[in-house]
Amino acid sequence: MAATGKLTHIDAEGAARMVDVSAKAETKREAVAEGRILIGAAALDAIRAGSVKKGDVLAVARVAGIMAAKKTAELIPLCHPLPISGVTLDLAIEADGIRATATVATTYTTGIEMEALTAVTTALLTVYDMAKALDRGMRIEGVRLLSKTGGKSGDWKAGDA
Amino acid sequence: MAATGKLTHIDAEGAARMVDVSAKAETKREAVAEGRILIGAAALDAIRAGSVKKGDVLAVARVAGIMAAKKTAELIPLCHPLPISGVTLDLAIEADGIRATATVATTYTTGIEMEALTAVTTALLTVYDMAKALDRGMRIEGVRLLSKTGGKSGDWKAGDA
Amino acid sequence: MAATGKLTHIDAEGAARMVDVSAKAETKREAVAEGRILIGAAALDAIRAGSVKKGDVLAVARVAGIMAAKKTAELIPLCHPLPISGVTLDLAIEADGIRATATVATTYTTGIEMEALTAVTTALLTVYDMAKALDRGMRIEGVRLLSKTGGKSGDWKAGDA
Amino acid sequence: MAATGKLTHIDAEGAARMVDVSAKAETKREAVAEGRILIGAAALDAIRAGSVKKGDVLAVARVAGIMAAKKTAELIPLCHPLPISGVTLDLAIEADGIRATATVATTYTTGIEMEALTAVTTALLTVYDMAKALDRGMRIEGVRLLSKTGGKSGDWKAGDA
Amino acid sequence: MAATGKLTHIDAEGAARMVDVSAKAETKREAVAEGRILIGAAALDAIRAGSVKKGDVLAVARVAGIMAAKKTAELIPLCHPLPISGVTLDLAIEADGIRATATVATTYTTGIEMEALTAVTTALLTVYDMAKALDRGMRIEGVRLLSKTGGKSGDWKAGDA
Amino acid sequence: MAATGKLTHIDAEGAARMVDVSAKAETKREAVAEGRILIGAAALDAIRAGSVKKGDVLAVARVAGIMAAKKTAELIPLCHPLPISGVTLDLAIEADGIRATATVATTYTTGIEMEALTAVTTALLTVYDMAKALDRGMRIEGVRLLSKTGGKSGDWKAGDA
Repeated sequence: MAATGKLTHIDAEGAARMVDVSAKAETKREAVAEGRILIGAAALDAIRAGSVKKGDVLAVARVAGIMAAKKTAELIPLCHPLPISGVTLDLAIEADGIRATATVATTYTTGIEMEALTAVTTALLTVYDMAKALDRGMRIEGVRLLSKTGGKSGDWKAGDA
Repeated sequence: MAATGKLTHIDAEGAARMVDVSAKAETKREAVAEGRILIGAAALDAIRAGSVKKGDVLAVARVAGIMAAKKTAELIPLCHPLPISGVTLDLAIEADGIRATATVATTYTTGIEMEALTAVTTALLTVYDMAKALDRGMRIEGVRLLSKTGGKSGDWKAGDA
Repeated sequence: MAATGKLTHIDAEGAARMVDVSAKAETKREAVAEGRILIGAAALDAIRAGSVKKGDVLAVARVAGIMAAKKTAELIPLCHPLPISGVTLDLAIEADGIRATATVATTYTTGIEMEALTAVTTALLTVYDMAKALDRGMRIEGVRLLSKTGGKSGDWKAGDA
Repeated sequence: MAATGKLTHIDAEGAARMVDVSAKAETKREAVAEGRILIGAAALDAIRAGSVKKGDVLAVARVAGIMAAKKTAELIPLCHPLPISGVTLDLAIEADGIRATATVATTYTTGIEMEALTAVTTALLTVYDMAKALDRGMRIEGVRLLSKTGGKSGDWKAGDA
Repeated sequence: MAATGKLTHIDAEGAARMVDVSAKAETKREAVAEGRILIGAAALDAIRAGSVKKGDVLAVARVAGIMAAKKTAELIPLCHPLPISGVTLDLAIEADGIRATATVATTYTTGIEMEALTAVTTALLTVYDMAKALDRGMRIEGVRLLSKTGGKSGDWKAGDA
Repeated sequence: MAATGKLTHIDAEGAARMVDVSAKAETKREAVAEGRILIGAAALDAIRAGSVKKGDVLAVARVAGIMAAKKTAELIPLCHPLPISGVTLDLAIEADGIRATATVATTYTTGIEMEALTAVTTALLTVYDMAKALDRGMRIEGVRLLSKTGGKSGDWKAGDA
């Protein structure tokens, strides 16, 4: 597909469209995406402390990411609505921030990469929201697809180019 | 506020809450946020070409970002609903990708940073969606607040620490 | 404003934006819009009959229109979210169809015409949905603003040109 | 079905319901709808001018219509949620206004007419919103189904009665 | 399943997830739920009176419940989006209040109990909203699943334990 | 108001409407609502165990309730959209189930009772969803307003009649 060098979501005249996927085969598909938010030491300590008690800090971000995956087709104009069959969202506190990794699955005629990426960015934005009174300089970095499986274009892994 | 080292969105027991802002003064507030998506040469060429005709490529991302700003309180669990008074979203094609810069304004009792950041990430995710058939390795980087004005905590600019 | 002949929602470069209304005065505003759906005799009889019993036929369309008014800023990309203070939606069965008239009010810095128009079209589409098994040839006609009051541009009535 | 002269969305007592479609066969279905907005000369000139540069004017309306198609079941109370497989929305500037034509497809157990009609009306309302500072007297006319294919009730074309 | 005593929506570490249901068989499923709102005599008389004329009182609650069923996956964080194939919502005025009974159907890989329960609670909350100026002491009681059919766990009826 | 014995949301003809509140004074208002879900011993033990680790069980229900408060005007047809200024949602594990208590605040021209009640029911439905594989016989009971303050009708407490 890359060979053609055309954007599939834009027709020959340059007009946006939602591509018809009804002729594509329904297959099991999975996408994994990740991203990080860099956080200052004081704010990161507060997040760690908040996670020790009732644990709501990361839980709120995790729920936000899972719910956002279900809103992907509402947010991304040319995305197809998809029957999401599962979402897991892992949030890991690292030395300088938090890493989010989302795994999303469907059995459908089109891919689920956007749902995984939307879950990741929304979870990271939620962390920003909760910690912004302590650190306004947080940055979201490295949001990317790690892998996808299923579908006509086949499997793909970051690094494959 | 940073001095206290506490997360305002989490109570003393660790439970999440939407902080009561009704005692805060209503002031004019503005936030500017930016972010970038790194895109391979072939996909970036296709975006440039698609923008020459009807111009929908960047227009779709711009509309997606503006509409997402209005959905911020639906996406970020502890965010207050806000009467957004204006949004502009600038999308610039650079040598290795696209930069999004969002400026969002309100006259309200709480800040509008999350709306600016949500506009930026959604616009960049929309670019990803439109170009993903050509390049699955795109990465979103450097999503951050550039400045905010108004409110009790006063003005802030990236770099101020 | 008409004198300038420029679209306010598009900047000098042609890019869409949500215009900043924060400098405008908050005033009480009201808008009235109407529209009609033309319906074949058999379907119209069925609607009349359905309205005789529990009365749900027009009630469903009325509720749909009222709820859609609240969704206007989600549907129309450059519309500002507005604190709607009241909505009434009148549905009248006429000789050849149904006429919807919506009256919507707010006290805010920007007008509420789009909410009135959105209420009307959604109520009429809902009638179409309920009667489409009997008549697929129904047509929505004459959706227009009847009047607006309040705001800097002052009062306006259809026919004023 | 027309023979019975009953509204399928209302039960024998007059109560609204979402009809159970689980026994119907899943088939490929397509619906085409159209509508027009009549616009004064000055506003239409401004739209033409705005479309010459970045092209956002019609692009915003196009995106709004496509996104609205995905919201149909949220707007129309008794409509089934549907896996939309494709949407194209054509906007043509005519002598006295703009014509919108939407083509929407699905592979499902129930029809997709409402999605096509919702795309058309929302695109036209978006044009109204963008041009309303120049012309408040615009009117939406002739919103109707042009054709449908697939499903038990078979193919239908406007004019077939 | 009860034997294991584990929450399926929480992983071994205690983190929330949306369970992957893609390996489950697609079957026809139905769920019935009910609930009641207890209403003082004066408010209940007003509801009866309001239902005599255009009948909108119960119609509004019925529409609200049907539309809420379609929003279940937006409201309940770990719920899967589902293709709802039908909803009926019965509202009966009783001696001391109103009883809501919802029947919801799907053909899918996971159950539809939450949609039925969400329809019931939203219909009852809507009654509360309409009558609250007359009686603030109304109470919602006995919201529960009456039965479910289909799926691997088989049929279930309230009272079966 | 109770003296009149009329439903404010229904006009003299019986038609539903969203009452115009623009003439009412903007005051600080708060509403507290509660409700319970009765849960069998095995499921309640699993919830307790799940809350010991990452603590997501109650956190998910708490987030769901807070987010639902923001969706109230989308769910309840004749409810006004409101600028919610704060939400807290307390979830207590009791001997035979879980009690939810929501406190919601606004500064606006109309009350916020429906937001508090919607937060409570959605939190309890979320508990049902997470525990339903262990106990399908859970029941939601005693959903009611505990108190409201602010507004023309003044303060009210459950038990005041």
